[in-house]
Amino acid sequence: MRDRVARIQAVLREIGADWAVLTSPDSVCYATGHVVPVEAGPSPFSGGPTTAVVSKDGVVGLIGPNHEFGKAPTVDAFTNYTGFTLDEPTDQVESYRRAVTDVTHTLGIAGRLGIERASFPHTLSQIWNLPTCSIDRALARGRAVKTSGELALLKRAAEIAAIGQEAARALSVVDTSELEIFSGVRSAMERAAGVRCPVTGDFLSGVARTAAMAGGPIERMMQVGDPVICDLAPRIEGFWGDSCGSFCLGQPTERYLGMFSAARAALEAAEAEIRPGLSVSSLDAFLRDVVNSRGFDYPHHSGHSIGASVHEYPRIVPREAAIIEENMVLMIEPGAYVPEIGGVRLEWMFKVNSTGAQTMAKFPLSAVRP
Amino acid sequence: MRDRVARIQAVLREIGADWAVLTSPDSVCYATGHVVPVEAGPSPFSGGPTTAVVSKDGVVGLIGPNHEFGKAPTVDAFTNYTGFTLDEPTDQVESYRRAVTDVTHTLGIAGRLGIERASFPHTLSQIWNLPTCSIDRALARGRAVKTSGELALLKRAAEIAAIGQEAARALSVVDTSELEIFSGVRSAMERAAGVRCPVTGDFLSGVARTAAMAGGPIERMMQVGDPVICDLAPRIEGFWGDSCGSFCLGQPTERYLGMFSAARAALEAAEAEIRPGLSVSSLDAFLRDVVNSRGFDYPHHSGHSIGASVHEYPRIVPREAAIIEENMVLMIEPGAYVPEIGGVRLEWMFKVNSTGAQTMAKFPLSAVRP
Repeated sequence: MRDRVARIQAVLREIGADWAVLTSPDSVCYATGHVVPVEAGPSPFSGGPTTAVVSKDGVVGLIGPNHEFGKAPTVDAFTNYTGFTLDEPTDQVESYRRAVTDVTHTLGIAGRLGIERASFPHTLSQIWNLPTCSIDRALARGRAVKTSGELALLKRAAEIAAIGQEAARALSVVDTSELEIFSGVRSAMERAAGVRCPVTGDFLSGVARTAAMAGGPIERMMQVGDPVICDLAPRIEGFWGDSCGSFCLGQPTERYLGMFSAARAALEAAEAEIRPGLSVSSLDAFLRDVVNSRGFDYPHHSGHSIGASVHEYPRIVPREAAIIEENMVLMIEPGAYVPEIGGVRLEWMFKVNSTGAQTMAKFPLSAVRP
Repeated sequence: MRDRVARIQAVLREIGADWAVLTSPDSVCYATGHVVPVEAGPSPFSGGPTTAVVSKDGVVGLIGPNHEFGKAPTVDAFTNYTGFTLDEPTDQVESYRRAVTDVTHTLGIAGRLGIERASFPHTLSQIWNLPTCSIDRALARGRAVKTSGELALLKRAAEIAAIGQEAARALSVVDTSELEIFSGVRSAMERAAGVRCPVTGDFLSGVARTAAMAGGPIERMMQVGDPVICDLAPRIEGFWGDSCGSFCLGQPTERYLGMFSAARAALEAAEAEIRPGLSVSSLDAFLRDVVNSRGFDYPHHSGHSIGASVHEYPRIVPREAAIIEENMVLMIEPGAYVPEIGGVRLEWMFKVNSTGAQTMAKFPLSAVRP
């Protein structure tokens, strides 16, 4: 964790702030390792976002509700306030305010605060009344190159996403609903992870739905000949895996195979093309060229980075100025969509190494369900 | 929805505020019907919380990111800002700020704001610079008596929770892991609901885990004689169901049956006891007495209300001054826990009617798995 804290310290120096105030679940996990539960939304027993503070000297504090902590996290100052109570109603917001005030005194929080603008609560600005600046852009950049600990977590998340993709192929049979297949896919990933996992993504079957690119599973029953898109992102120990698989239920048409091989060619070309020093915008253009040259295109991003958040900086889009660096983890997801045929999207996780890139798990790759 | 808006208007009159600013997913759903996705945590493509505003005259506005809306909601003013983009990086926080500013001009937001303190973002206080007061307590009270629309949604959520309880009994067999059973339970509820559902709760097997009362499913394999606690809360169309079932894998001991009948007696007594005019604290004491008189106790709350949030006001705890009213929906969840035997907890959803209470679904009730 110390190397992640060191990156936050560098960010604070860059923006001229004394303390980072982290209020998004992903940044809290990045700074402290504490995994904030998200699946059911904000807890009615919390009085504010679980909050991490990091000083320019590397001191780390964490404030969260009592029900969120099975064991104390390894930080310099930790306050778990009364969120859930047994015998009387309580004002969780006041408890949160008091806990923040305590940590402020314990750690001597003062000076200029680097805040996450989307989640910094009004209640904290009232307590601190200190000058603030946005940490968003600098923190996103500081998190883009992964530490060895993050790479290990992301590799495990990649492997579990790949297990989900294998399950999607095994379970996708005619006369089964998308919803039921997706449920089995989640189950396979949770079994592999050994814990419940938040999962996001798309599950689409049939021509119209796959051509539309995105959406969760519905009651639609799988039919012979259906194209399928399964885009799976599980969160394991606070870090996300991602991947997209596409396949056909039964013998695909020539046209579908053409779409599939266009996306596959782009993915394989990406593996050869990605290297430190390459600009993201040129990688994006390169991938679109591969697909376009085969007569198809995809009206979505070419990919994104990933970590404690499922979408991180840099996104692989045409007008992104970032340069690829060693130890970035990039999702690459070219596709091909034709209204009367359906859609194909293939997405793998790549780790950028010193001279190129390698996939972080073995993702299944065939145009037909085995 | 208009009757829910009318309740918010009454809350505004009570607290002397001109506009309600609602920033929690449950309050947004309460005011507008829009179901904010929660399962994967705050979206990296959002610039702030999806936000609803309601005036004292009943005008409703809604601001959220483009990716959250398949179709426009039925409100007086709606702005979906650019969250997800295709070709360039974007500053979602700035987009959110602009969208809020637009809605402010369109609707003429001014005067005193009633805010949700745990989630009101600093960025909104910067935009508005208007006097604020807490809407939390008054809104919780205003939401406690359910509208007919809410009662219908909650009944459906109750029925789906009951389907989950039936599945938990059917799937709980020896040599299956808690994780796998819970996964099948979720799948059964999603199949019944026809959509993916956020689910929270506990799944516990064995003496030590059930005696400890709370926790998610783990890899533990079910064994002959295991006590099981399955506490299930699914969110369907933005409204939560809840329930807890307990049973034994195989023939229970006399002691376990004693615990079970203590909890069951309290639940059945609750059905006879609950009525408008009864105080929550006396209901809590009554339930504890039933269990205590049989030699057991439960060191947790006796229940809670439920709606667009899984835990709502009033909670059934000893020092809660609230009075039960017609059309409240109450979760009643007495239990019995003994370290060397394990735990039992039974929880049903009750609708308070004009003279008493009725369960909102048929929850399975036997101490042994069928």
